[in-house]
Amino acid sequence: MSTYEDRLKALRDQLARDRLTGFVVPLTDEHMSEYVGAYAQRLAWLTGFQGSAGSAVVLPEEAAIFTDGRYTLQVREQVDGNHWQFMGIPQTSVAAWLGEHAPEGGRIGYDPWLHTRKWVEDATAALRARGAELVAVDTNPVDAIWPDRPTPGKAKVEPHDEAFAGQSSAEKRARIADWLKERRADAAVLSALDSIAWAFNIRGRDVERTPVALAFAIVHGDGTAELFVDPAKVDGELQGALGNAVSIRDREAFGDALDALAGKTVAVDPGRAVAAIFNRLDEAGATILPVRDPTVLPKAIKNSVEIAGHKAAQSRDGAALSRFLHWLSVEGPKGGQTEMSAADQLHAFRQKDDRLVDLSFDTIAGSGPNGAVVHYRAEEKTNRLVESNTLLLVDSGGQYRDGTTDVTRTVAIGTPTEEMRRNFTLVLKGHIALATAIFPRGTKGGQLDVLARQYLWAHGLDYAHGTGHGVGSFLSVHEGPQRIATSTDGDEPLQPGMIVSNEPGYYKTGEYGIRIENLILVESRAIAGAEREMLGFETLTLAPIDRALIELDLLSDSERAWMDAYHARVLAVIGPQLEGEAREWIEAACMPLG
Amino acid sequence: MSTYEDRLKALRDQLARDRLTGFVVPLTDEHMSEYVGAYAQRLAWLTGFQGSAGSAVVLPEEAAIFTDGRYTLQVREQVDGNHWQFMGIPQTSVAAWLGEHAPEGGRIGYDPWLHTRKWVEDATAALRARGAELVAVDTNPVDAIWPDRPTPGKAKVEPHDEAFAGQSSAEKRARIADWLKERRADAAVLSALDSIAWAFNIRGRDVERTPVALAFAIVHGDGTAELFVDPAKVDGELQGALGNAVSIRDREAFGDALDALAGKTVAVDPGRAVAAIFNRLDEAGATILPVRDPTVLPKAIKNSVEIAGHKAAQSRDGAALSRFLHWLSVEGPKGGQTEMSAADQLHAFRQKDDRLVDLSFDTIAGSGPNGAVVHYRAEEKTNRLVESNTLLLVDSGGQYRDGTTDVTRTVAIGTPTEEMRRNFTLVLKGHIALATAIFPRGTKGGQLDVLARQYLWAHGLDYAHGTGHGVGSFLSVHEGPQRIATSTDGDEPLQPGMIVSNEPGYYKTGEYGIRIENLILVESRAIAGAEREMLGFETLTLAPIDRALIELDLLSDSERAWMDAYHARVLAVIGPQLEGEAREWIEAACMPLG
Repeated sequence: MSTYEDRLKALRDQLARDRLTGFVVPLTDEHMSEYVGAYAQRLAWLTGFQGSAGSAVVLPEEAAIFTDGRYTLQVREQVDGNHWQFMGIPQTSVAAWLGEHAPEGGRIGYDPWLHTRKWVEDATAALRARGAELVAVDTNPVDAIWPDRPTPGKAKVEPHDEAFAGQSSAEKRARIADWLKERRADAAVLSALDSIAWAFNIRGRDVERTPVALAFAIVHGDGTAELFVDPAKVDGELQGALGNAVSIRDREAFGDALDALAGKTVAVDPGRAVAAIFNRLDEAGATILPVRDPTVLPKAIKNSVEIAGHKAAQSRDGAALSRFLHWLSVEGPKGGQTEMSAADQLHAFRQKDDRLVDLSFDTIAGSGPNGAVVHYRAEEKTNRLVESNTLLLVDSGGQYRDGTTDVTRTVAIGTPTEEMRRNFTLVLKGHIALATAIFPRGTKGGQLDVLARQYLWAHGLDYAHGTGHGVGSFLSVHEGPQRIATSTDGDEPLQPGMIVSNEPGYYKTGEYGIRIENLILVESRAIAGAEREMLGFETLTLAPIDRALIELDLLSDSERAWMDAYHARVLAVIGPQLEGEAREWIEAACMPLG
Repeated sequence: MSTYEDRLKALRDQLARDRLTGFVVPLTDEHMSEYVGAYAQRLAWLTGFQGSAGSAVVLPEEAAIFTDGRYTLQVREQVDGNHWQFMGIPQTSVAAWLGEHAPEGGRIGYDPWLHTRKWVEDATAALRARGAELVAVDTNPVDAIWPDRPTPGKAKVEPHDEAFAGQSSAEKRARIADWLKERRADAAVLSALDSIAWAFNIRGRDVERTPVALAFAIVHGDGTAELFVDPAKVDGELQGALGNAVSIRDREAFGDALDALAGKTVAVDPGRAVAAIFNRLDEAGATILPVRDPTVLPKAIKNSVEIAGHKAAQSRDGAALSRFLHWLSVEGPKGGQTEMSAADQLHAFRQKDDRLVDLSFDTIAGSGPNGAVVHYRAEEKTNRLVESNTLLLVDSGGQYRDGTTDVTRTVAIGTPTEEMRRNFTLVLKGHIALATAIFPRGTKGGQLDVLARQYLWAHGLDYAHGTGHGVGSFLSVHEGPQRIATSTDGDEPLQPGMIVSNEPGYYKTGEYGIRIENLILVESRAIAGAEREMLGFETLTLAPIDRALIELDLLSDSERAWMDAYHARVLAVIGPQLEGEAREWIEAACMPLG
């Protein structure tokens, strides 16, 4: 196996053969996916970096890797600082760095299937100011030197049953067709994998942790569509499910199909579709309508079947998590368990459910100081014992056929300190304030964010991540367009049927991490005397919150009442699924507070 | 005196002479001011509309007036619906309306001294799509037909003493010069009247309610400046105060001075400077740097002298307001007082202060249903009695040499209903939540807005205005860039030294209005164990809040404690300024609750 130093040299040699001065290596795929298949893990192969977001730039004499604040430490552990400079995003952008480091007259390559048009415009401008040029490549030079590069997944594409989807693909496509008519457009290009999975009621196994299939799609104004997917993945059952209005074509034929849109008005999402799609349509002579992917909003607003499925999945997932929490209450204090053994045990409890297809993401089990690393994932090198008198933070979820879950519980192993109890309670108070918020239709998530932070702020504390993200229906665990963050910029107003996470936290570097995460559903609220249409949240996630960490004196009467009512619901729904000692444990865990 | 019908006809005749098909009449001046001098009240003269914001468009066969939701009722009372169509902003824009109503081939005139460049671009595009043209006029056709049009004010421009300003104009200009150097620019054009007043430490009386002088200014990279102002307004004292580095030139010479910037890089604020300034610089061959006016942020961050002055002004203003509240407690229940007599009485109490130069805005005194009209101003036609068993909302403020105040109190006349008490208390709870907020540096006002609304929202209620606006130092009562509104878009983070209003409310159409408004100062907060630099608010406004409207059962212990501590401060600062019955009254008004 070649060393990373060998690989960097091999890439530079390849660039010389390709008459390029440099090359940009982002961590994404042709669909701008957050999680990508092994075949697209070019950044990890080239540099050794295992994080979930980053980019690299290779020039003849220097090379740089760009990561955000989550990975400041990790990138320095995994990537050789003798050969790579470490750059922080957003303080530096790849374009800005190129504008200062690219050699004058240089030709910097990029793969137009891996960047948005906006990125290309910014990088082109930065390089032009430097007297250098940004050049689209036909084939990715990393692929040319990656001898054992995995091929894209070959797993069958499966129909997603209407009993889970709640709406047929034909109905969904009819809505897209109406949307196209309103905009006087002829066709919509879909390239985001979850958009395609939603629109066609299909699921796949081509990407880790997200049940999507590698595909492109074009939906036409009459509701017919072309689905571009490796034909080896399509069987008769799928063809039958898709029906005659959907033409299945080879994924390789997508480019030609874009050419065939010459003269048409075509809706393409600049935030989701790569530059190559825009370029090809431009060259073909299509009129591009740059608008948000029409599936994004209806996908985010769950229908009643999806909501019912989600609740069923939550009930079973809550039982699996509760079994784990009971196990942890027994095994944790004995010593000898580790972050990895705990994550494996939780996985084992989830796997007993035959509707579990995958985890929603790699389980985060952070013991003591590792809990303070927000995007921590236990590995052999960092794996810590589950020790007494500290906290274990466990963030996990399952991809079930009827719903996607995402839940964080923080558990005291042994006796927590007063400070831990206070800070846990401050996080809990914020969690309750958001869970119980009432707000008028039209409110954006960013308007509610402070509710979750206010009690931490009063003590000079905060958390450096968003408060909530959308969640798909047996799809991406991170889904837009709604969110709950410190800004309302670009926010979509919250609407009944949207699911978001409610996950305030607190992280004390080098000591411990706290996060309490439930998924919550936006719903209408009937309020006597209301002068506006009001909305609120129903909490969907059901699992005990560790009472050993709650400082009762810091809770108001209404907060206590919420906590007791929540635990009563947990006991009512989860209790009957447990037996023996686990049942006894959850009964105690869900008793009214003090 | 001509009728409004005559005036409309006269304008159409003038447009025919000027070979224009139509004309746009906005309510602003050459400085994009919120409040304008009488000479610039073209909209009111043409249409009869007395509101503070609006626009009109006159075409050969139709004419339309555009106002926002505040003036939906008022515009229909004041403007003749036989000759004018009523259009709502933002549902329709002037540009969009022109794009549908302008005759094909038409030439629609606009005065480039009264519109931003952005407006001109939008309107040009809308008219082009219609096959019509937007045409800049050299002289405003309304002025040509307005026989007795007032001339711009002739009041002397006065120095604003450094004992109030806290910083010399030379220092301020040196900071602007540094700012220009950082941006490699040669000069900054200032056209907003409050920016000029701040930068040169001058004040004037050319605009109602805002102590500014009609002027333009150019600040150069060496800290020297040109101030363009009617020479008749400048005396030796002012010249001495401004010093040799400031050249005083006639306001009419401003255009030529822009021409003289040929070849220079010039900073101009696209949000504050009118299109004519950009056009003139473009034609002269200057390079325009479109950036925010460099005075905006330092003007918003009050220095210690300004803060001390503001507090002194608040103390005296609170005494005047408290005298009024005492008077109202005696005279209100007797009957016979009206909104206008109450406003006059309040004015009389304020006028006893020789530092009072003007009111901050026309006093809003809304009795019963008039209190629910958010931007109500009592006039003979609408003037209501101060009646028993309803509420009187009084929003007012003073322009004192040492500070600008803005305060709203809502008072029960006679016995309030339970509903009034509940809703007042919900507003109060929101007011307290914002007043006591603690937040990290970098937080934008929009992030805190929900704190003020949350209790109303829980009952299905809301208010259709922002929660807070910035306030100047003996300058505009509405001042940016910070604000507290339902969006963070474009917000400037709150910084120590900024003053904002805290003014949640509730308005029951046809019945009553509630608003509780104090000004609050952003300040640093030392918090034991804090991991972030934290900020909070000091409440600056001091006047009793009507205890008859507080429903004690709805307040938490900490809210009661805040209320009692606030009233104790009011009594300590204001009490000693009052005598006799007023003193007794405030002692009772400020007693601890229940």
